[in-house]
Amino acid sequence: MSLRYLTAGETHGPQLTAIIEGLPSNLELDFEALNFQLLRRQKGHGRGRRMQIEQDTAQIVGGVRHGRTTGAPVALVVANNDWKHWTSVMNVEPIEGGDEAKRRVHRPRPGHADLNGGIKYDLKDLRNVLERSSARETAARVAVGAVARQFLANFGIKVGGHVVSIGGITAPAPNLPIDELIERTEASPVRVADAATEQKMIALIDQTKADGDSIGGVVECIVAGLPIGLGSHVQWDRKLDGRIAQAVVSINAFKGVEIGIGFEAANLPGSKVHDEILYTEERGYHRASNRLGGFEGGMTNGEPIVVRGVMKPIPTLYKPLQSVDIDTKEAFTAQVERSDACAVPAASVVMESVVVWEVAKAFLEKFGGDSMEEIKANYANYLKQVAEY
Amino acid sequence: MSLRYLTAGETHGPQLTAIIEGLPSNLELDFEALNFQLLRRQKGHGRGRRMQIEQDTAQIVGGVRHGRTTGAPVALVVANNDWKHWTSVMNVEPIEGGDEAKRRVHRPRPGHADLNGGIKYDLKDLRNVLERSSARETAARVAVGAVARQFLANFGIKVGGHVVSIGGITAPAPNLPIDELIERTEASPVRVADAATEQKMIALIDQTKADGDSIGGVVECIVAGLPIGLGSHVQWDRKLDGRIAQAVVSINAFKGVEIGIGFEAANLPGSKVHDEILYTEERGYHRASNRLGGFEGGMTNGEPIVVRGVMKPIPTLYKPLQSVDIDTKEAFTAQVERSDACAVPAASVVMESVVVWEVAKAFLEKFGGDSMEEIKANYANYLKQVAEY
Amino acid sequence: MSLRYLTAGETHGPQLTAIIEGLPSNLELDFEALNFQLLRRQKGHGRGRRMQIEQDTAQIVGGVRHGRTTGAPVALVVANNDWKHWTSVMNVEPIEGGDEAKRRVHRPRPGHADLNGGIKYDLKDLRNVLERSSARETAARVAVGAVARQFLANFGIKVGGHVVSIGGITAPAPNLPIDELIERTEASPVRVADAATEQKMIALIDQTKADGDSIGGVVECIVAGLPIGLGSHVQWDRKLDGRIAQAVVSINAFKGVEIGIGFEAANLPGSKVHDEILYTEERGYHRASNRLGGFEGGMTNGEPIVVRGVMKPIPTLYKPLQSVDIDTKEAFTAQVERSDACAVPAASVVMESVVVWEVAKAFLEKFGGDSMEEIKANYANYLKQVAEY
Amino acid sequence: MSLRYLTAGETHGPQLTAIIEGLPSNLELDFEALNFQLLRRQKGHGRGRRMQIEQDTAQIVGGVRHGRTTGAPVALVVANNDWKHWTSVMNVEPIEGGDEAKRRVHRPRPGHADLNGGIKYDLKDLRNVLERSSARETAARVAVGAVARQFLANFGIKVGGHVVSIGGITAPAPNLPIDELIERTEASPVRVADAATEQKMIALIDQTKADGDSIGGVVECIVAGLPIGLGSHVQWDRKLDGRIAQAVVSINAFKGVEIGIGFEAANLPGSKVHDEILYTEERGYHRASNRLGGFEGGMTNGEPIVVRGVMKPIPTLYKPLQSVDIDTKEAFTAQVERSDACAVPAASVVMESVVVWEVAKAFLEKFGGDSMEEIKANYANYLKQVAEY
Repeated sequence: MSLRYLTAGETHGPQLTAIIEGLPSNLELDFEALNFQLLRRQKGHGRGRRMQIEQDTAQIVGGVRHGRTTGAPVALVVANNDWKHWTSVMNVEPIEGGDEAKRRVHRPRPGHADLNGGIKYDLKDLRNVLERSSARETAARVAVGAVARQFLANFGIKVGGHVVSIGGITAPAPNLPIDELIERTEASPVRVADAATEQKMIALIDQTKADGDSIGGVVECIVAGLPIGLGSHVQWDRKLDGRIAQAVVSINAFKGVEIGIGFEAANLPGSKVHDEILYTEERGYHRASNRLGGFEGGMTNGEPIVVRGVMKPIPTLYKPLQSVDIDTKEAFTAQVERSDACAVPAASVVMESVVVWEVAKAFLEKFGGDSMEEIKANYANYLKQVAEY
Repeated sequence: MSLRYLTAGETHGPQLTAIIEGLPSNLELDFEALNFQLLRRQKGHGRGRRMQIEQDTAQIVGGVRHGRTTGAPVALVVANNDWKHWTSVMNVEPIEGGDEAKRRVHRPRPGHADLNGGIKYDLKDLRNVLERSSARETAARVAVGAVARQFLANFGIKVGGHVVSIGGITAPAPNLPIDELIERTEASPVRVADAATEQKMIALIDQTKADGDSIGGVVECIVAGLPIGLGSHVQWDRKLDGRIAQAVVSINAFKGVEIGIGFEAANLPGSKVHDEILYTEERGYHRASNRLGGFEGGMTNGEPIVVRGVMKPIPTLYKPLQSVDIDTKEAFTAQVERSDACAVPAASVVMESVVVWEVAKAFLEKFGGDSMEEIKANYANYLKQVAEY
Repeated sequence: MSLRYLTAGETHGPQLTAIIEGLPSNLELDFEALNFQLLRRQKGHGRGRRMQIEQDTAQIVGGVRHGRTTGAPVALVVANNDWKHWTSVMNVEPIEGGDEAKRRVHRPRPGHADLNGGIKYDLKDLRNVLERSSARETAARVAVGAVARQFLANFGIKVGGHVVSIGGITAPAPNLPIDELIERTEASPVRVADAATEQKMIALIDQTKADGDSIGGVVECIVAGLPIGLGSHVQWDRKLDGRIAQAVVSINAFKGVEIGIGFEAANLPGSKVHDEILYTEERGYHRASNRLGGFEGGMTNGEPIVVRGVMKPIPTLYKPLQSVDIDTKEAFTAQVERSDACAVPAASVVMESVVVWEVAKAFLEKFGGDSMEEIKANYANYLKQVAEY
Repeated sequence: MSLRYLTAGETHGPQLTAIIEGLPSNLELDFEALNFQLLRRQKGHGRGRRMQIEQDTAQIVGGVRHGRTTGAPVALVVANNDWKHWTSVMNVEPIEGGDEAKRRVHRPRPGHADLNGGIKYDLKDLRNVLERSSARETAARVAVGAVARQFLANFGIKVGGHVVSIGGITAPAPNLPIDELIERTEASPVRVADAATEQKMIALIDQTKADGDSIGGVVECIVAGLPIGLGSHVQWDRKLDGRIAQAVVSINAFKGVEIGIGFEAANLPGSKVHDEILYTEERGYHRASNRLGGFEGGMTNGEPIVVRGVMKPIPTLYKPLQSVDIDTKEAFTAQVERSDACAVPAASVVMESVVVWEVAKAFLEKFGGDSMEEIKANYANYLKQVAEY
């Protein structure tokens, strides 16, 4: 059975919860490293007040003992540090009082799940939608991805990410080794390696905030150190690039995804798009370029996975949009619940997390095994087979 | 259990086979309309010789009786009309003879699954990879999508598609009602509504062919007539836009997907990205624009789904690329197996097919029901609920 | 997507966690009723000391607000009331000290997962297996089932269970209406309706305990008030009786399951096995008997589901069994970790819980819908269709 | 992704179709051995006329080339040799003529899916139900299982089955090595190893046929040569015994399943139920007995899997049962469509097939790998780990 997970929890509820099922035993977990991923999600120039309140940490309440997984499902909890202010509004039990006590929402915000979710689930308090559709849930996905990241690190697989553009300002392609990319972007409040671009992006974010508007951008994730042959061409739903596409577009506010040169491929002749195949005894099969972003036939080809996603500007706005009150059917201009002018740097971390999850899942599908020892032996087997091919 | 399907079959094997599981009973099938979809996939300026050989038709060998589904799994067969020339090469039983008799492939083509698939599956005859990874398989997916299309038509849901750009030539946005879009693009050999663009695209395709090169492009699919609330925001893998993204990127040669304004959202302020909410008694809730392509929170919002995918140029080339023989490890320039200069118009049909499948799946998840009668009653029921919300 | 759930947690860990995904919105939850199910699992003559320590309660930490589900995943926590004594032994972080501090287990108990799990997961501390394989996990499954039970109650579907036999003592078939069955068995410490049998069972349990041995038994679950047509005959994995069989055999210590007359069907002629079909205007189609336990063709036929499962004696023994120390490979006689002489009455509650879950899942697959209102309307639709058939 | 399959096809339709997804490459298939399994399903004393008409053979139309799998999905077709008589009745296209031409069925047979299926799917011609619910579909499952059987044979895993009882006549436990069991039961028209029992069973079947009645029985399947650790205790749906239970109960007419001593465990003290653990250098860990049928904690323990299923008498009867015409709502006595007095020996073959499928699925989940070479290396690797534990 494939690796799987479920998350639960609301943005103002007591906690986010995730259960990861299908991990091997004897995976050593570095809890600091895990929490560092949560911290990375909270950082980034352009975040609003709430990110300062909460210092997210993941508490493990199942599946790990004395620093290692046991093979049992791993349960993770990310507590809401602000929960004490919400115990009544978000109470699981019925409470006294009317709309005010419940902080009922009846004014759907354009660009959010509010209206669609209210209609679909027949909910007249749109808080019941927005509490779950909030990007707060991505903290759980980052925690889950952090476990996958540590798993893959055992096999020399590394994951980095960076911001490609914000609000139309595009950084030059970094072209850095993965370790240096990780280090350089970590030091940047907008997760770009180029200092000049960084300054321009920060200025644009500040201006946007001052204008009461918001901006989106494009982020890129790179996974290096991969074997040939994750994913499969034999059935559409086993193609790893397709699965990664689903994972990326499922991130809140993401509206597109591309692999390798992506949409640019529409403008180039075939002779400029593909990656020629080379062979040397030291490196085995490899490529002269990586335009296809590490995939052919839905399988990894040994080059780094390169995937980009686009995040739209956060729809929570100071510059209000027109909407309709669901009680009165009267027009109003949409209210503000939160206030990030730009969440693109954080989105880069979320995208890394969901991509690395899919890679770990495909990795375990290919190599099987129930303990780290067994997986490592299987992996060594396969690398030998590849070397001898 | 959700609607699901599997396909099997090789490009030069006897047939493609698909099994669709989870269809309701009493769906009237129009077999001509079904085969028309297969024909659409074969058309398009820029296709090579093979498309003329085969007039694909789908034969139904299970799940349908006297023109209607029975609720049982539907089995579809698309025969290979050229099979008689391949009975030995593709025989399921061992054959006499060496590499020539087997038409063994040992020279992997860049941009194809050949090398990765050969390594992953430990196959020294790369024909065993390319026969399955070939885009021929999309004929099965089109047949499957054609059933989904007919199912959704019962609920007034219509699917259209058109070519946005080929080799850098971009058509003006058609802005047509869905019926007119379907009609206009059907009449065009490159599936564009604009006559001037059509001519330019045809000329470019001809030139590319003459140059021995290939070109890709961008295609767009529109699904109109949708209810609010397909998909869900509550768990990442239930977001319908994410599922559509997977389906699109899983099409052979597709390298990216975007919803609504997609990557353009990275360059616009939040105040220019979202779709304001309006309400009138006749139309109920609706939107002033459709920048988000019919999705908020992973759910349909009642506006048409607008999704674009990018297809890279077909990697089969007259202009050869460098590769390595797996027997000798010596460099060579890659061989040609087929010769479409441009398959973008056909890819548009494939994309429609995989998108409409995901919509049908989400539709059945939401409305349940085992017979068309039951589903129609459930649907009417929900529309009433929406109207009264 | 179908209703699904995952559980996590160890018997001596801080908590059991469950996430339920796919519930509709607006399901009113009765928290007392939910906890009552957990209490039922803890009762029953023959339980050991531990059942008295813990008064299990389920805390909901997601998906429910002001007494109703929101459509979001429901997260449930059952805390371990004895956790304070285990914080070091079960610490997620590495601890100081050797085998004693860790309460390491190196002596596998026959009849448990210990040895197989230790080998599979390459774990030299068998505690890492037994903590998860413990029947403590069924508390989470009972909590999950309690939610399904409340969901189905909205449609008049009721679930009861009773003990058929313990250690060879068999109760007479109760032949009671479901409400009376529920009431009568609830009053019995061994969950039988017949007072004379009750006394004999209690005496046997006491004697078994005195002997340092353990006994198993057979339990029966009845689900009444069902519509015709849950499950489907069209594909093997959609047959509801098959799914129920999986759920039952997956309960710790269960070794078999039968539907209706079950194994007795092997001894009877066909003329004595099937249920004749009757029709009256008031009742519609119904049956003269219920030998097939509510199923034909993997679908409900409107008669109550009747399913029985067999639980082997709990392998934890005062009368020790021979085993082998994994460190020394030397024989020893197996150690005792817990001490229930008979857990059959509790197992009856667990079986009800897993059966009702499968019924709820099949119910939602058939009727679709995202809110209770929508499901109720769909259900009314279908009942009308059935009445008019 | 796990091994999966779908089947399609009707009993009087042109063919049964199956697609198997997830097989490794380079599995050598013995087509004669595959068809031998289909033949085994057709044999057995007590079968009616139809079994003689058809000599089922499986034709492979995808996924296999020159005698070996390629990793692509395997498509299997079992043609209906009697199809020429049914081309009109079972036409996929609408036909002229009324009920007679269509051989419409409006009289539901008790014990079949007819009435439930007709109501669920809103079908007034019950032929649309019975064509799919017919046990004919098990031919496809046997073909699928035959592939799994050949896969597992590569790892020394063998599958046998025998009839335990028919109509109340019980054979003595054979207690034979697996190879001898296979040989002996194959030679018996009722699949029992004991000659005296064989004669009694044959006489009973003949008498039952003469009486116009039918009988069922109990069959047992044994899987030998297994590694420790298939399946897992960590989540209920990964327990292999549970999955096997689903597979068995999903066979047409099966009403129960038990593992090892099964229901007998209810009558024995714990000290007589479990399997003591032994260790020798040659054999490693093994057991003094196999009462638990090869499973502890939902995982294999290295002992043979022993699973029994009960088949009710086939509901098609010469001795008619009362039913109700769906047109007139008038009572009638149920019609006869077919005439097997006893299908228990054939059911034994079907049960072997579905059990071996689940084992192969769990095997691939544990060992991963895409080619036979890779899986064999992984397996060797694990056996070494087990030996060193």
